[in-house]
Amino acid sequence: MMKLMAKRAITPGPRDERGVLAARILAAARDEFAQHGWAGSTIRAVARAADVDPALVYHYFGSKEGLLDAATNPPQKWLESVAKVWTTPVDQLGAALITLLLASWADDEIGPTLRAILQTAAHEPATREKLRRVVEGSLMGVSGLGTDERERLVRSGLISSQMMGFALMRYVWKIEPMASMSDDEAIAAVSPNLQHYVDGDLTTGS
Amino acid sequence: MMKLMAKRAITPGPRDERGVLAARILAAARDEFAQHGWAGSTIRAVARAADVDPALVYHYFGSKEGLLDAATNPPQKWLESVAKVWTTPVDQLGAALITLLLASWADDEIGPTLRAILQTAAHEPATREKLRRVVEGSLMGVSGLGTDERERLVRSGLISSQMMGFALMRYVWKIEPMASMSDDEAIAAVSPNLQHYVDGDLTTGS
Repeated sequence: MMKLMAKRAITPGPRDERGVLAARILAAARDEFAQHGWAGSTIRAVARAADVDPALVYHYFGSKEGLLDAATNPPQKWLESVAKVWTTPVDQLGAALITLLLASWADDEIGPTLRAILQTAAHEPATREKLRRVVEGSLMGVSGLGTDERERLVRSGLISSQMMGFALMRYVWKIEPMASMSDDEAIAAVSPNLQHYVDGDLTTGS
Repeated sequence: MMKLMAKRAITPGPRDERGVLAARILAAARDEFAQHGWAGSTIRAVARAADVDPALVYHYFGSKEGLLDAATNPPQKWLESVAKVWTTPVDQLGAALITLLLASWADDEIGPTLRAILQTAAHEPATREKLRRVVEGSLMGVSGLGTDERERLVRSGLISSQMMGFALMRYVWKIEPMASMSDDEAIAAVSPNLQHYVDGDLTTGS
């Protein structure tokens, strides 16, 4: 990140300006979606919050749908973190997954993007489809999960259900004491349940 | 239900008509919120779907906020089911809770109400507050959860995180294979994790 910033400072230009403005517009869009929902958000309000002309938002993103699509695209560094967590030994995956979740939401680019996905997925078919791809795409590379394709999907779906529910309670709905419990307490409480979905017996109900 | 219908057929009157129309408006409102989100919904569209005059919606519910409040009020029969589940012996609560969840979402009044709460809670502070009250109110009567007030809230929050995440994946986002897995498979997979939050050790992370 430092390296990237330095490079930009040395060679400013139209392309860099576009990147900076686009990032500012996307951050404003995520804020706007978070506050007013997708249907209640307007290009005009996003442009005002980003301090740019609405025409520039259309020029960069084409439409409100294009803006939502870009604003909910998982950042590359998050995809890399997800890929890395899957190199964890299977018997430690539960703890690694909840640790990744906590770190991701604390990040000032990844957190707002995940929030925008969760908040719009409830009623926007396009974002729901993206959520589905994120869930499946980020979990299906995992060779250690299950013995066949369906079991792998069941296990990754169950893992996601716990991680999504935890993230909603803690970060989106901010329900206490989930919202303010320490990372250590969260890791100790949730790890064993994620581990059960990773490699536990899912057929006995006990 | 049969008894109620029979009684209404015998003694129709303004009060019964009001009940019938209000229920129809609320069902239309839940559909509308589900499809367009809270901000994208209008009293006019709800009235059209319910086949009533918009003035009647204002007369019954006062405002769009009043309509949302009524549409997301947990049905009495659901509150009774929740109260009953807490009479289950503590060592069987995990299975009882996921069984209740599956039955609740299958119910044609409770399911749409829970969906409306989950879909609007993401970006509506008033519904988020209601969700918080539902979560805390429905789980705090439980004497078997934890040894002090904070532990009880932590355990009920963790239980909620799993149940909310599961409901979202299966019923709201409809992500496969969660959406189509059998009730028996869901109960077998999720019960042990809920049971861990009910009476397991939450401090060791193993």
